[in-house]
Amino acid sequence: MTFINDDFMLRTAAARGLYHRYAEKMPIIDYHCHLVPQQIAENIQFRDITQMWLVDGRYGDHYKWRAMRANGVPEEYITGTRSSWEKFEKWAETVPYTMRNPLYHWTHLELSRVFGIDKLLCPATAREIYEECNARLASEDFRGQALIRRFGVETVCTTDDPADDLRWHKMIKDKPFGTKVLPAWRPDKAMAIEEPESFRKYIERLGEASDTVIGSYADLMDVLQKRHDFFASMGCRLSDHGLETFYSEPYNQREVDSVFKNTLDGKTPSPSQQDKYHSAFLHDMAVMDARDGWVQQFHVGAIRNNNTKMYGTIGPDTGYDAIHDLPIAAAGHRFFDRLATEDALAKTVLYCLNPKDYEVMTAMAYTFNDGSIPGKMQLGSGWWFLDQESGIRKQIDALSTLGLLSRFVGMLTDSRSFISYPRHEYFRRILCDILGKDIEEGKLPGSEIDFIGKLVEDISYNNARNYFHF
Amino acid sequence: MTFINDDFMLRTAAARGLYHRYAEKMPIIDYHCHLVPQQIAENIQFRDITQMWLVDGRYGDHYKWRAMRANGVPEEYITGTRSSWEKFEKWAETVPYTMRNPLYHWTHLELSRVFGIDKLLCPATAREIYEECNARLASEDFRGQALIRRFGVETVCTTDDPADDLRWHKMIKDKPFGTKVLPAWRPDKAMAIEEPESFRKYIERLGEASDTVIGSYADLMDVLQKRHDFFASMGCRLSDHGLETFYSEPYNQREVDSVFKNTLDGKTPSPSQQDKYHSAFLHDMAVMDARDGWVQQFHVGAIRNNNTKMYGTIGPDTGYDAIHDLPIAAAGHRFFDRLATEDALAKTVLYCLNPKDYEVMTAMAYTFNDGSIPGKMQLGSGWWFLDQESGIRKQIDALSTLGLLSRFVGMLTDSRSFISYPRHEYFRRILCDILGKDIEEGKLPGSEIDFIGKLVEDISYNNARNYFHF
Amino acid sequence: MTFINDDFMLRTAAARGLYHRYAEKMPIIDYHCHLVPQQIAENIQFRDITQMWLVDGRYGDHYKWRAMRANGVPEEYITGTRSSWEKFEKWAETVPYTMRNPLYHWTHLELSRVFGIDKLLCPATAREIYEECNARLASEDFRGQALIRRFGVETVCTTDDPADDLRWHKMIKDKPFGTKVLPAWRPDKAMAIEEPESFRKYIERLGEASDTVIGSYADLMDVLQKRHDFFASMGCRLSDHGLETFYSEPYNQREVDSVFKNTLDGKTPSPSQQDKYHSAFLHDMAVMDARDGWVQQFHVGAIRNNNTKMYGTIGPDTGYDAIHDLPIAAAGHRFFDRLATEDALAKTVLYCLNPKDYEVMTAMAYTFNDGSIPGKMQLGSGWWFLDQESGIRKQIDALSTLGLLSRFVGMLTDSRSFISYPRHEYFRRILCDILGKDIEEGKLPGSEIDFIGKLVEDISYNNARNYFHF
Repeated sequence: MTFINDDFMLRTAAARGLYHRYAEKMPIIDYHCHLVPQQIAENIQFRDITQMWLVDGRYGDHYKWRAMRANGVPEEYITGTRSSWEKFEKWAETVPYTMRNPLYHWTHLELSRVFGIDKLLCPATAREIYEECNARLASEDFRGQALIRRFGVETVCTTDDPADDLRWHKMIKDKPFGTKVLPAWRPDKAMAIEEPESFRKYIERLGEASDTVIGSYADLMDVLQKRHDFFASMGCRLSDHGLETFYSEPYNQREVDSVFKNTLDGKTPSPSQQDKYHSAFLHDMAVMDARDGWVQQFHVGAIRNNNTKMYGTIGPDTGYDAIHDLPIAAAGHRFFDRLATEDALAKTVLYCLNPKDYEVMTAMAYTFNDGSIPGKMQLGSGWWFLDQESGIRKQIDALSTLGLLSRFVGMLTDSRSFISYPRHEYFRRILCDILGKDIEEGKLPGSEIDFIGKLVEDISYNNARNYFHF
Repeated sequence: MTFINDDFMLRTAAARGLYHRYAEKMPIIDYHCHLVPQQIAENIQFRDITQMWLVDGRYGDHYKWRAMRANGVPEEYITGTRSSWEKFEKWAETVPYTMRNPLYHWTHLELSRVFGIDKLLCPATAREIYEECNARLASEDFRGQALIRRFGVETVCTTDDPADDLRWHKMIKDKPFGTKVLPAWRPDKAMAIEEPESFRKYIERLGEASDTVIGSYADLMDVLQKRHDFFASMGCRLSDHGLETFYSEPYNQREVDSVFKNTLDGKTPSPSQQDKYHSAFLHDMAVMDARDGWVQQFHVGAIRNNNTKMYGTIGPDTGYDAIHDLPIAAAGHRFFDRLATEDALAKTVLYCLNPKDYEVMTAMAYTFNDGSIPGKMQLGSGWWFLDQESGIRKQIDALSTLGLLSRFVGMLTDSRSFISYPRHEYFRRILCDILGKDIEEGKLPGSEIDFIGKLVEDISYNNARNYFHF
Repeated sequence: MTFINDDFMLRTAAARGLYHRYAEKMPIIDYHCHLVPQQIAENIQFRDITQMWLVDGRYGDHYKWRAMRANGVPEEYITGTRSSWEKFEKWAETVPYTMRNPLYHWTHLELSRVFGIDKLLCPATAREIYEECNARLASEDFRGQALIRRFGVETVCTTDDPADDLRWHKMIKDKPFGTKVLPAWRPDKAMAIEEPESFRKYIERLGEASDTVIGSYADLMDVLQKRHDFFASMGCRLSDHGLETFYSEPYNQREVDSVFKNTLDGKTPSPSQQDKYHSAFLHDMAVMDARDGWVQQFHVGAIRNNNTKMYGTIGPDTGYDAIHDLPIAAAGHRFFDRLATEDALAKTVLYCLNPKDYEVMTAMAYTFNDGSIPGKMQLGSGWWFLDQESGIRKQIDALSTLGLLSRFVGMLTDSRSFISYPRHEYFRRILCDILGKDIEEGKLPGSEIDFIGKLVEDISYNNARNYFHF
């Protein structure tokens, strides 16, 4: 029997029934990812499996990079100058050592689902697999758009900067290929006043994108509202913020405006001034989303760019980020309370990176549901370091016990890879395994299998469709 | 087979044996709950299942309310003006969507154990179940006292304010119905100096309860000691504190007295002054409990009243509380260390609301056991948001590995409902399931089944009886 | 069937295969423990099982002491004046009440593996077991060195103060008994400036050990480098630090020198000055380890000496320590980032005492791996309160999902007992049980059983051998 077989991760008959009868057939809405719009628009053809899987210019799969570094692979074989084959070979050497790491499952799922390869990747099979993959990648069926289509992806939301002109999204819209590709609004750079130099440059760029000079906080908000409208006109329906924690310090508009202006004038804001700015900005963005009927997402708890030496060499997003442990409850509740008080609370999905925060996050989310729609504010799926079996199980358990699993908008890839869609399959298998086990242990009534099947379909697809209204 | 059958939650033969031979038959000591003494004394007859289960004036089951709001039910069907049937109908619509939430188990346990109804509640069964329940509620067998008796409840401890005259407890004492109903001491309002206005009013009321004017911190302590004595005369044997975290800042009596007086005089204490007052008050209450041989309970980690808008509309305890994430170790250890040093450490039960704190709490509790009695200081049962299968399992595991499960005083309902006693059954089933699984996996010796059965009886009942001495 | 049988903790056929074919036969490298070098050198003969197991002068097994206190055993039977038999009897009474606590497993494992006793310890068997153990302890086969040899221990690393003259290590080196006994470097006392009085005394003692008067921070570093060299000459290859959290405050050398001198002059450093000193000291120690090619260990998260009264009576390390909950991410990442930037990051093992920190710790560790060797920086095994089944499982899961389990240097005893080596067996059984379960559930490919067996051997022994180079 192959490793990734039909019943992979499905330990009970009930689980197998749920997966094969209900989950398997549902389309995918991948409402948060980091695909590069240009690569979709240009319908990328990959040179080889190394470009697709490991490293593509300055970018690539930092999960794999971390594993390789931990396995003793020198950087030249990871982001360095070695050949595609040499890099792939080092990855193949590493794979057996990733047993019990999610990479072991993802790697073989992708080999199976994308390339139809059921062999285990290891030094003995490396060459053969490398060549087989590369041969297929040369065909039309393995270009970017075909790969997305193959997995039944109905909608993809990329992650975009407010200053972006969305030209690639336009190109895709003009020449559709069967999957909706929509932008999502990520204004992190306009919030990052704690790095004054890059902040100033960014504000200038943002002004240019709107043919304006941004001289005040009010100007900033005007420009952002215009860009928000433009994004909406391009089909955008959700925003996203990457935060260390929530911000909800008291402030007044004059203070914030003066912090903003002083920073543009070359002064470095104090920590307390940064807090006020962050608090104002985050609040005003949330109000904008509420006004325009968008969904807002908060990704909370990363500590980034921790390895200064490697940051200097190869830049951000290269495997040197980690999990933060700041408190979130007090500031988070104040933040959402103010929005609720102002009737300005948009639909909201909360993600956390530290599993210790799952319960705090879930209890917080379910303190602001107002009965207007099912699952208005909810806990998001396992994110980044938690995007693996144990993280997914913890997320489903926290959501189940402190909220409503039934109304969950489900999985997303959060990935810049064209072949990470098997993570939806992986998630669905785990979801069905959990529900199936509950049924077999009598914790859920077996008589309700049809309803439970419907829940599986809802979580796999229907809930997201009804929630986002793409 | 019905959903809630004889072997519900019992996955192994050993578990079934432990539950049916040992756990099932033990009486209940419900040493912490929020039953309304007046409703017991007056032997409440419920108008209908909606009053009993969902909403009773301003109060009701905020677990269900949160679930309904998250399921998209408008507030008018929850705490609003809709009819009993309309509210019940919305709850029945919500129930299937609570699968994997503890409400799904609790709801069907209560239907089964109280009303003998084995149907699953859903829109199709709603009307029938509504009418069947209401018909039974009209009989004498379903009045408050009969409901308590039916579950073999030997003792109930309510939660009472020091200013309370305990008139309803007297009435029950004068006309006993087979279950002891004792008060418990919860002086939270006398500690809440951080809300000066309601604090002043409360101190006035407390003075009146003792025919005194409270003008100084020493007066306050005198009055509280008199009320403590009065509570003791009414059978009270335990206190309870609801805390965000522990308080143990250095202070001197003069400072505290002056903070107290200034607050009564209309000044708002600074955060640091609040800390000093909290630290002094909590310490002095603990000393009082130790002197009088009571048990003290600390419920740590809620963040309350987070939704200002709804607080303004429907008040506290309506489903807008959540889980806090303040540090507890440093202040907690200082607090108990001082009591140990002064030979003033009462028997103590610690509850935490954030599951990340279970290990810190348990290690702390077992740092102050002094060999005077078994389980003198211990971790309390899963509380509030953790009062469900996964929370109970985590509590039992933390207690087992870092303390002595064998000496655990066991479950309580923490509920204002007359029919939440099946939660004791639920807890016992999970306890037996855990022990049974350990036996079947060889982690506990099967040869010791009689001793393990005795442990189950102890945790179900004997330990609480010996610990509280009601 | 006996309780501790061949297949103890091994629930699947795959697990049994892995354990009996691969794990069981591997030697032990116990790279971190608290054995007393003098007791090894003098080849201790134990008076009785009470001395060996429970209390030996001021020292003993504080795990057992905590359990006894929680079980209501008065202190006179624990660290007090009662006879060996009386103390043992109280322990025997306590043992059945430790079911589900790791002590229950450890106790019976040790009785079985050391004394060949398969009876369960309880009041009925206490006398018989006491006498049988004592009879054996009188023989040569049960002296210290023979006990270590019996368990196939290849190397033991003790925990030693830089001021120590290592005379007992020399004696062992001169008269070897088959197990390498090496010192390890624990400079905690030279860091403990927060307790100025004992700090001053210690610095004086350290100076004497090096025939120097330490008058400045630079002197301190000179002396420590000399001691470091001396330890290296005695075979030392690893350091160890016990920390509440990490320290990485900005400082300059002048400040630190002045804080150091002022403290020696009798002034008490402020909290901020302590932080600067801690930050400088910890950094400089890490640089020393890197320069000399050692492994550095950080044990983070204990809160110690919490029971002042008992500290005054019986001193430190007597069962009054607990689990801390300080944040670690920000300071930890800054600390290691600086070392990475300076190319001064030694091989590093991180241990945490609060299980909520496992993910933060693991993500941090794998942010600084640089590809130079496999597993250069990694998460250490379950420590102290986490040195039990559930802690071990959590450690293995965090390490697996966020790092590379395959490169783990594995278990250690962290113990001052001569008979705690069965904890290696316990760990290996749990490891095999985890892997075996994964195989049986199809999460690891059964076809790779040989490779997985090799991983088990690596984690049991080979990885430590290759990592430490003793």
